[in-house]
Formats: sequence, structure tokens, C-alpha cells
Amino acid sequence: MDIALLGGTGDIGQGLALRWAADTDYGVIVGSREADRARAMADEYETELSSLGIDATVESDANPDAAARADVVICSVPAYHLSDTIESVADRLADDAILVSPAVGMKRDDAGVHYNPPGAGSVTALAAEAAPDDVPVVGAFHNLAAGKLANLDADLDWDTPVVADDEDAKGIVMDLAAGIEGLRPLDAGSIANAGEIESMTPLLINLAANNEHLHDLGVKFH
Amino acid sequence: MDIALLGGTGDIGQGLALRWAADTDYGVIVGSREADRARAMADEYETELSSLGIDATVESDANPDAAARADVVICSVPAYHLSDTIESVADRLADDAILVSPAVGMKRDDAGVHYNPPGAGSVTALAAEAAPDDVPVVGAFHNLAAGKLANLDADLDWDTPVVADDEDAKGIVMDLAAGIEGLRPLDAGSIANAGEIESMTPLLINLAANNEHLHDLGVKFH
Repeated sequence: MDIALLGGTGDIGQGLALRWAADTDYGVIVGSREADRARAMADEYETELSSLGIDATVESDANPDAAARADVVICSVPAYHLSDTIESVADRLADDAILVSPAVGMKRDDAGVHYNPPGAGSVTALAAEAAPDDVPVVGAFHNLAAGKLANLDADLDWDTPVVADDEDAKGIVMDLAAGIEGLRPLDAGSIANAGEIESMTPLLINLAANNEHLHDLGVKFH
Repeated sequence: MDIALLGGTGDIGQGLALRWAADTDYGVIVGSREADRARAMADEYETELSSLGIDATVESDANPDAAARADVVICSVPAYHLSDTIESVADRLADDAILVSPAVGMKRDDAGVHYNPPGAGSVTALAAEAAPDDVPVVGAFHNLAAGKLANLDADLDWDTPVVADDEDAKGIVMDLAAGIEGLRPLDAGSIANAGEIESMTPLLINLAANNEHLHDLGVKFH
């Protein structure tokens, strides 16, 4: 199983790349708009993994080439780049490829950070609109604090709700998520249910901003 | 400190009444549209508490009379009854009374349950619009599974995000929440941040519906 992380040089993509490289045997391909930039970050990830005694290869490529080599393509780009990014790789995707959307649309005002969904209703639904009709889209990894995710010294104990209209694709992505130690995927139904998941990300930011003892928040349901 | 639970005969109101009566010395006044109905439920709560060896008095009254006697008034009614309920008690509230809104607007379709906020942006904001100008409104207790909350044999380990535009009122309600064993109040900022909290309730319902091992869900942030 090969996973491409488009926008894998920043934020949530960095943490997912490191965690999958550290915790699983999946092939990890860091994608970026510039192949050189992708390689530089993949080198950094390999160096960091090596410093922890983990001998892992992190591959790299420009986004379309990374996507072409992958079974699962994580669109870890900001929400406002999502449609363009998907369009840039659409005709390169493998026959059974799955697209995964972890992005959240947010806006900030004096009170805090607020959910700011696109007209499609959610960013995951926007990804489904932008994707080719025969490519299943899965929403996952929305509620993970990027800093803690990328810190391999930090033990996770988080849930990630997963939505998709294609049950097989959802199952594959839930298995990928479960490969990361301390991450529990939960089935949240179809893409119509994505907005409530994405809404939790600004809440996590507001809670960290307003409670001194809390930072790098994720969520656990029980 | 006296707490009135308008709509304290059902759902979340029942659990809050039982928990405060069991875990704290606060006066608990169950309110309902009919005083007789409120008394019947208060008797049931007293019987249940007694069966667990807890000798607690649960008072009761019609909603306006219950509200008049309380320092903090919990509007534990469905979202579509919220404005009417607040209007029905508005001119009876004590000088320093605080209103608390735990309600969430939801709608169901084939995919699951979805957040369905009123035009005010959130149910908590709707409560603030309906309340007299000098009465602070606090949003809290949105994400608690009613069945588990009302089952005193069940240990809780949940967070409840709390929002208000009045910091003093927020602090008082956070103290009330902290009086319930296993419930941790978290400051989520102002009422402008309520929508993201209320949105989590349909997510909890969707997760319970789609994962066999999960039911009566609450949330913990860490």
C-alpha cells in the first residue's frame, strides 16, 4: 500500500508522513508543487526518523507524479487549494485510487476561530465535487493537532471520525488510520455528515486558546 | 446556590437534576409547564436517589415559579421551545439570575443527524436573543448523552465546553459543572463560538449509530 501526501511538506501532511513511516510498512510519498521541495522535506523526515532509530525510506515527487504512484492520495493542502490540487492530479490517478480529504475551512474573528464551510457544505463534499466521478473520496484526519502529530516523542490517544459514500474506500482508509499507534478511526457515516466533524477543528483551537493547561488538542469519544 | 431545570422532567434535564442532587449541596428545582408533572418527576428522582442511599430533596414547581426561585436557570427544553420558555419566565427572574442553554438544533435525513442551527447562528445565541438584556446567558452541557448522564451507576469522564459573553456568569456555571463528578468544564470563549460546540452533538449520535461498540457518547479533549 502506497500513500501519497499532497502538500506533505507542511502541517498535517508532515505528521501523517512521519507517523506512517514510523509505525507501518506502507510506502510514503511526500508530494509538493515542486519536486525539489518535496525531496528536501522527505530528507528531513528520514533524518528525523533515523535520529529516533527508525530506518525508513520516505519517497518524494511533484504532486501529480506522487499521486500517480499511490493507492491512497491524501490531499493535505489548505481548503482553498483543494479543488486546484485535485484537478492537477485527476488524470494521473491509478484505477483504484482513493482520495482523502483532511482539510477544514476556518475563519478567525475577535471571538475565536469559526467553521467556514464552502458552498458544497463541507470541505470533504467539495473534494468529492472536484474528484473524478469514479474516484471515491474519504474524509478523515480533520481533528488532529499538527504539532503533536509530527512529534514522534508524543504518544497519541485520539479518535478520527471517517466519512465516505463508498464503504470499501472508507474501510481502507480506516485501516490506514488504525496503523498509526494511538489513533482510533471511527465510522461517522457518509460525506453528508462531514460538516460536523470539520466543525470540531475550530472548537479544538478555541479550547486551546481559552484554557491554560490545554494545547495540541485532539479528541476521544466514549 | 439554587438551580432550576426548566424542562427538568426529560432528557438532559433529568440527568443534570439527578447528578447535582447526588453530587452537590446545590438546591435543585425541577420545572415543567405543569407543576403536578414537575412534582411527580421530582418524586421519582428522590426515590431513585434514595434507592442509592442518597438522602436528597428535589424541589419542583411550574417553570416560571421554579425560575423565580433560582440563581441559575437551565433551559433544558428542545430548541424549538427555547424562546417561548425563556419569554414565559423572563419577568420572574431574580436580579442576578443566569440562564443556561444546553439545547441543540438537529435534523435527521437518510445519512444521519445534522446540525440545524437557528438563524441566530446557534441555539445559545438564540437564547441570548430571547433573554432580557440584563440577564447573562451561558451555553453548556450540549454534548452529554442523556441516558448515561441520568444513570447514576455510570461513571462519567466527559468534558463540557462552556461559552458566554459574561465572564462572571461563565465562571459560575463552570463551577456548577465541575460539581458533577467526572465532568470537566472547559472555557470555549464567547457565545460566537457556540455553533461548533452544538455541532458536536449530531456527530456523537452519528458515531454511536455507525460503530457497534460505541453508545451513550460524550467527549474528552486532550
